[in-house]
Amino acid sequence: MSGFSAHDHAHMARALQLAERGAFTARPNPMVGCVIADGRRVLGEGWHERAGEPHAEAMALRAAGGRAAGATAYVTLEPCAHHGRTPPCADALVAAGVTRVVAACRDPFHQVAGQGFAKLEAAGVAVEFGLMEAAARHLNRGFFSRIERGRPWVRVKLGMSLDGRTALEDGTSKWITSEASRADVMRWRARSGAIMTGIGTVLADDPRLTVRLESGETFIPPLRVVLDERGRLPAGAGLLTDGAAPTVAVHGEDMVPDYGDEVDAFAVRRTGAGLDLGAVLAQLGQRGVNELQVEAGATLSGALVAAGLVDELLLYVAPVLLGERGRPLLAGVTPASMAGRLGLRLLDTRQIGPDLRLLLAP
Amino acid sequence: MSGFSAHDHAHMARALQLAERGAFTARPNPMVGCVIADGRRVLGEGWHERAGEPHAEAMALRAAGGRAAGATAYVTLEPCAHHGRTPPCADALVAAGVTRVVAACRDPFHQVAGQGFAKLEAAGVAVEFGLMEAAARHLNRGFFSRIERGRPWVRVKLGMSLDGRTALEDGTSKWITSEASRADVMRWRARSGAIMTGIGTVLADDPRLTVRLESGETFIPPLRVVLDERGRLPAGAGLLTDGAAPTVAVHGEDMVPDYGDEVDAFAVRRTGAGLDLGAVLAQLGQRGVNELQVEAGATLSGALVAAGLVDELLLYVAPVLLGERGRPLLAGVTPASMAGRLGLRLLDTRQIGPDLRLLLAP
Repeated sequence: MSGFSAHDHAHMARALQLAERGAFTARPNPMVGCVIADGRRVLGEGWHERAGEPHAEAMALRAAGGRAAGATAYVTLEPCAHHGRTPPCADALVAAGVTRVVAACRDPFHQVAGQGFAKLEAAGVAVEFGLMEAAARHLNRGFFSRIERGRPWVRVKLGMSLDGRTALEDGTSKWITSEASRADVMRWRARSGAIMTGIGTVLADDPRLTVRLESGETFIPPLRVVLDERGRLPAGAGLLTDGAAPTVAVHGEDMVPDYGDEVDAFAVRRTGAGLDLGAVLAQLGQRGVNELQVEAGATLSGALVAAGLVDELLLYVAPVLLGERGRPLLAGVTPASMAGRLGLRLLDTRQIGPDLRLLLAP
Repeated sequence: MSGFSAHDHAHMARALQLAERGAFTARPNPMVGCVIADGRRVLGEGWHERAGEPHAEAMALRAAGGRAAGATAYVTLEPCAHHGRTPPCADALVAAGVTRVVAACRDPFHQVAGQGFAKLEAAGVAVEFGLMEAAARHLNRGFFSRIERGRPWVRVKLGMSLDGRTALEDGTSKWITSEASRADVMRWRARSGAIMTGIGTVLADDPRLTVRLESGETFIPPLRVVLDERGRLPAGAGLLTDGAAPTVAVHGEDMVPDYGDEVDAFAVRRTGAGLDLGAVLAQLGQRGVNELQVEAGATLSGALVAAGLVDELLLYVAPVLLGERGRPLLAGVTPASMAGRLGLRLLDTRQIGPDLRLLLAP
């Protein structure tokens, strides 16, 4: 667990970079990167690009060819031991003559965790893990959340003025943040398995919630999810008619919505305050959503925060003042004392065009 | 104006660093730094530490000694040509045999601007100016403001939660921001000629508005200014009784306040909304205040913003949520449309402990 060399660190850092190349395409699978190396010399690199296509290890072994014999494989996740849509990577590493495997973390699936390592060790391969584990888990926080907690990693995206307002008193909110920020949001959407909003936002703004990348990179269009407690989603809504990505409506289980055939829907229990948000997340987890991006108004965003269901807050702050009558950032968050205030941790700060982007965790 | 060499830039950058050493002590004088150099070789350095004590040029010439003959002097401000409390620096540079003077900017005093340069040129010294002028003006923005606009540079300091609130609904605000932020505020106080607050804050919190530096650096205690429209400042207020620094009360000119003898006071006109803030600033300018730091509540801070009298906003953002019922950042700022919103420019972002510090300009 300790005593990793500088080469080990450099190769694992590279493997993490490679893994991230699958950010827009690997889901519902995890992003995985692999480097085959001999000392400091890199012999092959690979990453997992898309479900059903080769795993990172297979790609790196192919690149290394015969030179893999006696080499070390650095992988960001425990190599698989089971036959899925591709053969087990642990077997492939053994067959190629790799003599040492360094993994950042274990596979979180209970039924397979440790099996990849066991298979490798049984074949005489030295196995070490835990190198840059925090970074590897952070990269795949969506995948780990879905497997370990049965629900997606929830990212709430909000745009606000410097004085914490999301709109003027009359509701006007186009555009508080800059074009640069809106382009940046697209990259976060592209790595999300689903984008969720509330029916209020759909009725007010008719948003598309699609991904538009200037870079031309390929991506899997994220599912669009509308929380529609009382079945008000209109058949003509842009996200139902544009055909850009599937859309799911979620309604209360005590009512039968009047949706057209084209609407994929599921029902959850209603609580006093609205839909059972925990149940919504569980359903999305079952549908393979690793990261859920919430782009909603103060009501739904506030309800998720108040329910403790938010894993990270992606906040775009425009350097403008909208004034004391502007709409608040979150509704329903009303701590009674300083001790009861909701504390967060600042993970990342970046200037995006004229705006500031903050990433925070509760 | 153009064609400055890399050495020129390096020496002027150093001179600006030296100038900043006077940030806590030089006022009401400007901060000035000077480097005497021959090519890349530095022969002497100096800065202006305190009014009445040697100017930067004199200190640098003393350090350079006889080696100044034939050398270049880099100064962040035009050398003075008049006899003040110290002899003219232009004469001293000529006497030392300096053959070239590079200045960042002109002296802003109308009656002396250009006279230092003229004196040098008359003595055969080559004069160039404008090198790193923006940085030099930024460093002395308080001094330039007082001389050119007749009022201090106004910095409004505010602490707020992530959702733009300065206190809970009941007014509780201790402590939103961290100890690290409060220590950072002390450094901004130390470079200010005065700290201004409103009577509401004095009655509610009894603040001291003094400078407490952990570093042990020397500083001139800033004047404390209380806007006290109707003469309500109590004789027992901490900032009147602690003897830490002078305190000035400002009241409406249509009333006679019942202050004790120890209170230094002046009156200004009352407008519908409160005291004439422009008149307050003009008076403080006359009293030699270069930078005014405002540490007040939403009412006074908002009034200054609404009046267009704020030059920079120093904002400490704590990563906490105080909720939609929390107190707003600024009162009286209520744009009616997106076009009417107040736009700012983000000048600097820094993490201070767990908080974020933003410096913005309208």
